[in-house]
Amino acid sequence: MMTGGAAAAEFKARLAAATQATESKLDSLLTPALLPGETLRPAQFLEAMRYACLDGGKRFRPFLTIETARLLGVEGHGVLRAAAAIEMVHCYSLVHDDLPALDNDDLRRGRPSTHRAYGEANAILVGDALLTYAFDILADEATHSDSQTRIALVLGLARAAGLGGMIGGQVLDLEAEQAIQSHSAETVARLQSMKTGALLLYAVNAGAILGRAEAEVRTALARFGRAVGAAFQAADDILDVEADEGTLGKRAGKDAGRNKATLVAAVGIEGARQQRDLWVAEAIGALDSLPKSVDTTVLKEAACFVAARTH
Amino acid sequence: MMTGGAAAAEFKARLAAATQATESKLDSLLTPALLPGETLRPAQFLEAMRYACLDGGKRFRPFLTIETARLLGVEGHGVLRAAAAIEMVHCYSLVHDDLPALDNDDLRRGRPSTHRAYGEANAILVGDALLTYAFDILADEATHSDSQTRIALVLGLARAAGLGGMIGGQVLDLEAEQAIQSHSAETVARLQSMKTGALLLYAVNAGAILGRAEAEVRTALARFGRAVGAAFQAADDILDVEADEGTLGKRAGKDAGRNKATLVAAVGIEGARQQRDLWVAEAIGALDSLPKSVDTTVLKEAACFVAARTH
Repeated sequence: MMTGGAAAAEFKARLAAATQATESKLDSLLTPALLPGETLRPAQFLEAMRYACLDGGKRFRPFLTIETARLLGVEGHGVLRAAAAIEMVHCYSLVHDDLPALDNDDLRRGRPSTHRAYGEANAILVGDALLTYAFDILADEATHSDSQTRIALVLGLARAAGLGGMIGGQVLDLEAEQAIQSHSAETVARLQSMKTGALLLYAVNAGAILGRAEAEVRTALARFGRAVGAAFQAADDILDVEADEGTLGKRAGKDAGRNKATLVAAVGIEGARQQRDLWVAEAIGALDSLPKSVDTTVLKEAACFVAARTH
Repeated sequence: MMTGGAAAAEFKARLAAATQATESKLDSLLTPALLPGETLRPAQFLEAMRYACLDGGKRFRPFLTIETARLLGVEGHGVLRAAAAIEMVHCYSLVHDDLPALDNDDLRRGRPSTHRAYGEANAILVGDALLTYAFDILADEATHSDSQTRIALVLGLARAAGLGGMIGGQVLDLEAEQAIQSHSAETVARLQSMKTGALLLYAVNAGAILGRAEAEVRTALARFGRAVGAAFQAADDILDVEADEGTLGKRAGKDAGRNKATLVAAVGIEGARQQRDLWVAEAIGALDSLPKSVDTTVLKEAACFVAARTH
């Protein structure tokens, strides 16, 4: 058993390693070899895809995939490909969400959002291309030799990113913005579990699929993934109220100005903090239900990190 | 051997059957069961997805999948699911192409385009949802019991719809519009083989995958698919010049007004007709290379239909 300080240091090192490995995998997946045509090469478009992906994000989703697989004894090339594919789907969702017709955000992680940098037409197509490429990567033999594993990854992603997950949450979010009344904590939780929770949960599930977890372990990991996703979004809502623009790299306080369905709007900032902490406890409890032989230190610290993050 | 008239009648009956079967499969795939949430149900969004898909199109891609599989002795539920998934990808591409930032088309098949009917935010998300759902459908066991078949379908779609296919073609098309000089016939052929050809080819390939075609048969069918796709797009370019708005259900003559990279712009209308006929001959030649035991009547008529179509 590690001490608190040693566990935190171990987590930080693992997060940094995952961030760097993901960055490098994204970089190698988004190369001119991707570009079609011999005479015709839309080089500027690849640049826009790279801009949308290689932006110094935390890579928390890839981290979850990498660390879940590692906890089950699986590492390497295929895991990184899956992690990069998940990050591409996350990046596509940000690119489309930022569009003028949706959230109309000019800033993303302290830089002009993709449509501000490359134009709206390119941003729409960049999103489409990233989503499509993610499925290409998961379905490719290079990710895993076993077709059943690959199809499980593909199906899981389609479900997490689709109408029952991310897109459905986005649709509900847009509708909620137009609603006159405020939203109940239950509604907010449901909406957020789809909009951001589903892909975070999938990131954990993808690690479990690649690590060939048995049913019971898979269930516990999914419970962890769901709780971490909820805590993550609660922390995000709290951050939006607390942070200033410089720290956040995007417009702060924007949620309140829009009648966004946030946890803070539903239960207040103190209520949101309590809820976040309950979810962190739930995440840790899920990991505690795993066999003692499994080293859950890093994932537990990840749950705490989610709650404590300041950007 | 059928006479010309009997073959044409057989083709018409098969096309009508494929159109109806696809319509019905799309209808059953796009039901409220798809919608997430118990209390929150974005019903209007499902309506928009249905609007984008259930629009009385020819369903030529599904027809190619269904008839290619049938030629190899495979029919039924799974084939129709794959055919519907391909049509969803086609519909998604139309919805996104019509957006103000891209082609800015208000009309599609004689009706307001999806963003005109449901707003731009919904149209962007409808496209995203259809693309994602297509992968969900292909990866689901209900499409085929064998995971290797499903993964081949998924990978093929990701490639056909991705940067090396449809999206890449769309990007090149946008770039071509901005170019000052006109485009060579070779450039146009390359661009179109990606933008529309790749998905038409995939529709044939999907039928071959589901029909478990052997390597040689698969190669011949792919040759057919490539040629039919090229003939289809050539016919489209010719139609754009010839047709009036009423017949076409979208703005006619719009390509020329935009410096679109079309075959007619590159080689003139007579040259385009000749090229189209060469491709039809190539498609028929590819089918003639199949074993005599395979009944290619319907697909041959399809190639002729593509050349002769007036809308």
